[in-house]
Amino acid sequence: MNTLFNTHWPLLEKALDVCVHRYSWTAFPESPSSKIHGSEIPKAAIAKFDDLLGHPFDLDMPGIIGSIGEEVSPFTEQPLGIKYPDVDPEQLFAAAAVAREDWSARPMQERVGICLEILHRLGQSEALFLNAHATVHTAGQSFIMAFAGCGANSLDRGLEALAYAYKAMSDVPETASWQRQFGPTIESKLEKRFRLMPRGTGVAITCATFPQWNGYPAIMANLATGNATIVKPHPRTTLPVAMFVRTMREVLVENACDPNLITMAADSESDPITMKLMQHADAAIIDFTGGPTFGRWIEENCTRSLVYTETAGCNSVVIDSSDNFDEMCRWIAHSMCQASAQMCTSVQNIFVPRDGIESDDGHKSFDEVCSSIVAAVDKFAGNPKVAAGLCGTLVDKKIYAAIDKMANAVRARGRILRESARYAHPEFDNARTATPLVLQVDASDKDLYAQEHFGPISFLIATDSSEHALQRATDDVRSHGAITSHVYSSDEDFLRRAENAYHQAGASLSCNLIGMPINFAAAYSDYHVTGLNPAGNACLSDLAFVSSRFRIVQTRSPAK
Amino acid sequence: MNTLFNTHWPLLEKALDVCVHRYSWTAFPESPSSKIHGSEIPKAAIAKFDDLLGHPFDLDMPGIIGSIGEEVSPFTEQPLGIKYPDVDPEQLFAAAAVAREDWSARPMQERVGICLEILHRLGQSEALFLNAHATVHTAGQSFIMAFAGCGANSLDRGLEALAYAYKAMSDVPETASWQRQFGPTIESKLEKRFRLMPRGTGVAITCATFPQWNGYPAIMANLATGNATIVKPHPRTTLPVAMFVRTMREVLVENACDPNLITMAADSESDPITMKLMQHADAAIIDFTGGPTFGRWIEENCTRSLVYTETAGCNSVVIDSSDNFDEMCRWIAHSMCQASAQMCTSVQNIFVPRDGIESDDGHKSFDEVCSSIVAAVDKFAGNPKVAAGLCGTLVDKKIYAAIDKMANAVRARGRILRESARYAHPEFDNARTATPLVLQVDASDKDLYAQEHFGPISFLIATDSSEHALQRATDDVRSHGAITSHVYSSDEDFLRRAENAYHQAGASLSCNLIGMPINFAAAYSDYHVTGLNPAGNACLSDLAFVSSRFRIVQTRSPAK
Repeated sequence: MNTLFNTHWPLLEKALDVCVHRYSWTAFPESPSSKIHGSEIPKAAIAKFDDLLGHPFDLDMPGIIGSIGEEVSPFTEQPLGIKYPDVDPEQLFAAAAVAREDWSARPMQERVGICLEILHRLGQSEALFLNAHATVHTAGQSFIMAFAGCGANSLDRGLEALAYAYKAMSDVPETASWQRQFGPTIESKLEKRFRLMPRGTGVAITCATFPQWNGYPAIMANLATGNATIVKPHPRTTLPVAMFVRTMREVLVENACDPNLITMAADSESDPITMKLMQHADAAIIDFTGGPTFGRWIEENCTRSLVYTETAGCNSVVIDSSDNFDEMCRWIAHSMCQASAQMCTSVQNIFVPRDGIESDDGHKSFDEVCSSIVAAVDKFAGNPKVAAGLCGTLVDKKIYAAIDKMANAVRARGRILRESARYAHPEFDNARTATPLVLQVDASDKDLYAQEHFGPISFLIATDSSEHALQRATDDVRSHGAITSHVYSSDEDFLRRAENAYHQAGASLSCNLIGMPINFAAAYSDYHVTGLNPAGNACLSDLAFVSSRFRIVQTRSPAK
Repeated sequence: MNTLFNTHWPLLEKALDVCVHRYSWTAFPESPSSKIHGSEIPKAAIAKFDDLLGHPFDLDMPGIIGSIGEEVSPFTEQPLGIKYPDVDPEQLFAAAAVAREDWSARPMQERVGICLEILHRLGQSEALFLNAHATVHTAGQSFIMAFAGCGANSLDRGLEALAYAYKAMSDVPETASWQRQFGPTIESKLEKRFRLMPRGTGVAITCATFPQWNGYPAIMANLATGNATIVKPHPRTTLPVAMFVRTMREVLVENACDPNLITMAADSESDPITMKLMQHADAAIIDFTGGPTFGRWIEENCTRSLVYTETAGCNSVVIDSSDNFDEMCRWIAHSMCQASAQMCTSVQNIFVPRDGIESDDGHKSFDEVCSSIVAAVDKFAGNPKVAAGLCGTLVDKKIYAAIDKMANAVRARGRILRESARYAHPEFDNARTATPLVLQVDASDKDLYAQEHFGPISFLIATDSSEHALQRATDDVRSHGAITSHVYSSDEDFLRRAENAYHQAGASLSCNLIGMPINFAAAYSDYHVTGLNPAGNACLSDLAFVSSRFRIVQTRSPAK
């Protein structure tokens, strides 16, 4: 019966091993190179994607009451013209409840096997290329980022969550024999059966920028543990979600399961249905990715549901000193540029002592640190081809206004170190591009920098000292959250203090990271989001992410 | 350094093994027999207990602002006259925050080792006897129940929770080496360190009847994962809590740890401080045992804290048929008597088809089933010596009024099958005793039986059929919760249907349980509380009980 489980067991076994030892591994191809995929598949994917445009998306769904769709490509500024089912949430919940019954009664290995098949299917070349094009023209990522970050890297996060779900469920035996004496004469023998019960139906709210990164783990964790999931995509980034929901439903049908275990509730920015979904009596689990204010509201108000959030923080860099000044500036700049700083791991607030720092290239004044970082940004952003691959576009044109607003706000009190501007995309004339806005402010200007500024806006912040920088940065972690934090120092004592200060503030820390994209968070190795600061309450992935999604019921009977 | 961990490792290793295989085991002596403990220790314990009466309890505590204590022995109806520190909660939280710093920085094995030592100490003969006497004269249990149920059985639950905490923490490695290529030329090598961070300070609210059963697991889970705990005992049952808090603090001091990791906040019924503790900004975790209404309120309103509850339900028995009618009646009656039905596992609502049932002793009419159960109750309750050992006393004299109220309510609409009355306790003339009130009602009388009636009040409920019984019983699980459920049937098909119906309602089930106290829930073997119905959201113990009490932070640095 569990043939899919057996087929994919080596994959799961490997994932389980990596999660324990946390070395580097990916189960899926990160590169779109034709050496791996050939040249036909990439070509066919472009044609397939083009065929989707201007048509209703072929997605069967219960409770269809119309169609809906308002996506606009950030590369062409043209509407995609794709319509999705507009559905009645009541009917989705009703269909999910029906689907759950059979699903939750199946052996957990069977559920896990089907989940593995889903990931395997989403990891095929055809799917990866089509997913990348869909992500490019909704989330606005460069193709290379969309292919790896929203392909393999997200599938890895999904497999990781599945591995944890399997581990947590495997901790519960199926049966037990129990025998003991009560009093001098009575001997009792019981047989016990233990059964994993799902919570019910989950609602997974995906974000506009990286819907797969949190979507896959939430769905895998839910499905494996017997729960159904209604996915609520962002109205600007619905296509990649619709595509993976369709694949998941196909795999379910192929394995004689009710496809309504996974449904999609699309909406529009003017008429959102998120609240209706979350406040439904059947919403047993909520996985939310999005803004911190709404995330906090959900944590505090959706008390009948299990709530898992990843929101955002103002990620910081503390520069104390460096023994590789050029590389440090280069990789900080890389983070400021990558995906136009729309990643949850993008750095925003760079704290530098106003008296400057010591480096392998001698003393660097505050202004020299600023100008070197700006020069490094220019190097990436000034080359349209490099910028296109690294920065991509803005997911939301409202970010232009946010950039202008911050530039104006700082003009009065600080200094604009680098103006943001469009870069000329080599392929798409109308691409919604923006190079980083880099602002200089004082540590006291908390009203300007001490909050998340979504998009390519960053601050070089003058502090009294490295210790002051550390104190400000970690205070901001406590108040506003952080998903990544960086410190650069050649002083081992300072690194220890920084580590402890960030950890005590509930943040993870990278020390002297160079030679790699510092935004990179590795599935199976990096615990993503600590849950100890306002940037989210859930971690990808740990036992806590999965172990409450199911409960245990048991039956005791006299042994025969 | 981790000598306690090494010393006690065999105990922990065994506990881990039992939790996986869930066979019968106890780590502590359940019997007070002099064959195990000798005769001196039991005698000395009585003297020690007597010495406690009428004096301030010697318990060092931060923030003492006075003294407080209003316990009355349910066996003598005399005040114990013991005063406990009345403390300022602000100062407890402040002291806990200080204590946590060093504690959470210690290796987890060291914390676990100290927890094991605490359990070991509480499991010594002297401690077990003194604990039993303290429990007798506060919770009102018989000595034998207090010795086993609030001694070994509760310590086992504590060790079980500790084993799960250890397992969950062990899932996170301390370090990892990570190496991968970015692009064609860049090779990155990182060293990663992972650190377990506690949530903060927990508040553990223990109940009047079995404070150790939930107290030990909450405290062990908190302490092991680096959290401090403020224990809030019930004002009627403070002494056993004060005793174990003192022992825990002693062990902490002996091991050069700050004792304020465990403090106690006593209060009075007229001036409770529970809300102040739970709503404190530092209350990161709440473990609550008590009434379902307050429990639900906490779950819905204390949203900034992790909340674990065990409350109560109306536990049911469905009688479809029996192939051992006498024994069935006997063990149901045993549950109705044991600890005066003040256990969370006591049965309350016994559903019987009004047309009677088939049994090994031929057809039994509804009335015959009733009279047989009542006769079995009489057999226990009618013998003062047996009643004293089995029923103990009422923890709260208000239960007399509740018994009268229900008897009067039923008189008008149903039938009183058995009146409640005091039984003559052989040792204590003034003992607050009560034998079971047994009421006959109709399935339609939901307003009478479909809620928890705390104390020796039970219902024999006439239903249209076994299926109707099952439907009513499982509906009540959904609406009012259940911690244990029983079905008696010689029909395998009915047993299957019953199992599924209870499981779908979120309840565990015992089938045809005879030959043992059916209230018994075995640590390491029975998952106690499913978390799927209103009787509580937490289970003793599973990974979900422990895995969110800590979080993970990490540090990434270039490999050297």
